Amino acid sequence: MTERGESRGAFFDTVAVVGVGLIGGSFALALKKAGVVGRVLGVGRRVETLNRAKQLGVIDDIASIEVASQKDDLVMLAAPVGSFESLFSQMAPHLSDTTIITDGGSTKGNVVAAARAGLGHRIAQFVPAHPVAGSHESGPEAAFAELYRDRQVVICPLPENTEQTVQFVHDAWSASGARLVTLGVQQHDAVLAAVSHLPHWLASLYVEHVATDVNAAANLRLAGAGFGDFSRIAQGSVEMWRDIFLANRSAMLDQIDHLQRLLDQARHALEQEDIAWLEKTLTHAAQVRRAWGHGHYQKDVD
Amino acid sequence: MTERGESRGAFFDTVAVVGVGLIGGSFALALKKAGVVGRVLGVGRRVETLNRAKQLGVIDDIASIEVASQKDDLVMLAAPVGSFESLFSQMAPHLSDTTIITDGGSTKGNVVAAARAGLGHRIAQFVPAHPVAGSHESGPEAAFAELYRDRQVVICPLPENTEQTVQFVHDAWSASGARLVTLGVQQHDAVLAAVSHLPHWLASLYVEHVATDVNAAANLRLAGAGFGDFSRIAQGSVEMWRDIFLANRSAMLDQIDHLQRLLDQARHALEQEDIAWLEKTLTHAAQVRRAWGHGHYQKDVD
Repeated sequence: MTERGESRGAFFDTVAVVGVGLIGGSFALALKKAGVVGRVLGVGRRVETLNRAKQLGVIDDIASIEVASQKDDLVMLAAPVGSFESLFSQMAPHLSDTTIITDGGSTKGNVVAAARAGLGHRIAQFVPAHPVAGSHESGPEAAFAELYRDRQVVICPLPENTEQTVQFVHDAWSASGARLVTLGVQQHDAVLAAVSHLPHWLASLYVEHVATDVNAAANLRLAGAGFGDFSRIAQGSVEMWRDIFLANRSAMLDQIDHLQRLLDQARHALEQEDIAWLEKTLTHAAQVRRAWGHGHYQKDVD
Repeated sequence: MTERGESRGAFFDTVAVVGVGLIGGSFALALKKAGVVGRVLGVGRRVETLNRAKQLGVIDDIASIEVASQKDDLVMLAAPVGSFESLFSQMAPHLSDTTIITDGGSTKGNVVAAARAGLGHRIAQFVPAHPVAGSHESGPEAAFAELYRDRQVVICPLPENTEQTVQFVHDAWSASGARLVTLGVQQHDAVLAAVSHLPHWLASLYVEHVATDVNAAANLRLAGAGFGDFSRIAQGSVEMWRDIFLANRSAMLDQIDHLQRLLDQARHALEQEDIAWLEKTLTHAAQVRRAWGHGHYQKDVD
């Protein structure tokens, strides 16, 4: 690796992406486009997919996970999170002292647990990350260099990471055009539970409520634009959201319990016709949502 | 009144709108455009507004509530719901036997209670209605003949109404271009609580939760498009929603309690990692929401 520790002018001789689809492929293409990588290796289970990625110029060569662990500056894991522990275990015996690992998984507590189990004392070489970006498309064909441009990428440094190692991963994600946010692992999972997983949970259960209600037919006939906006996310991939809820179960239960206390308080205020409480709460929520819509909360928190 | 009881060719010699803003004014303009009304009278508290409505051609003349009660085929109440009981009381002593009243209020249980209190034995002459249509604009300038075109209007006949009376109100709303749905008063309030009021309630409380959470700053920075859709309705008018929640309090509490039971069940399933329950529920909700988006529930329920 070259110029590690400098936030400008970083150059990566070799980067390996494990999983050459939307997330891994776009990371590779972004680094290539930024001119900060010498060679990109692709690692994956299906030779067919790897060949397509090579034909598309997403990767330069195909490699095994062992070779990628020995030879690369940076390994980026973009495989399904369920496969991470096995991948870390395969990498550990071959990992060179200077190879740094990052990932693109959307939950972090479970990924760090898998890394500790699989990497052992090599854990200091792993800096977890979560690019908050995506698309409905998948596979190497869906990858594009601009996926991370101006999107938020959360980096969750571990206590074992050196400052230099964190900077190295920071530089790589910066080169992809992303805006970086640093959060602790637990904080990351709590925040994502709050702003991504909980809305999906509530939207899905709300639709289920409306559809199983005694007035279901009239409900769905009279539902309008507000219903449409509020419930849009309930259409997402069932498999993906089931896995996310289970992967982030602990933070989700915590968020659900906190929200529940507010819902109970609000129900009580409505029952008691506590107009002052209702006005105060509705006013604050409306103000926050309007300010968010105007981008007032997009300043750095790291 | 002319040709009452026929669903086609109905003609209204005189129609009075009480409140000449968006809802009442658009009703007047729609009936004029359809050529089914002889003369429109406007009733209201502010002479200035009535004069503007007359200048704009929304109404033909200004009248008092007493005169409107004596002389008109149809009186449509489009004033704030809080003023209805007083309006009904003013109308009752003057109401001719052949005058029919309808309204445009967005909750019906409270309106029917006001009508029973204000109209007494004249209650049979009132057929409640709720046009599910609106705009961010208000006042006579905002009124337009197409407001109700292809929008849903719920009619809630009372046990005291004759079939002929209901048909008369049905004809008037049909002439405005609306699609009519017949629901009981309680059913109307339950359905509106489910598909309109509850989403607003949840969206507002959810935003309040996110904004008062320990990670509020990071939450609002990392919130993305899903959060935006889910919480968009929390930006609405605080005064309007406060009044709606209080006006429909009983149906809202019922809806909240029903949803609460499902949320508890879901929390338990997540805690117990009951994958089968989660998959079944998420799959059904996603299917219903997709079908709703494709218009599969727009068939008649009356």
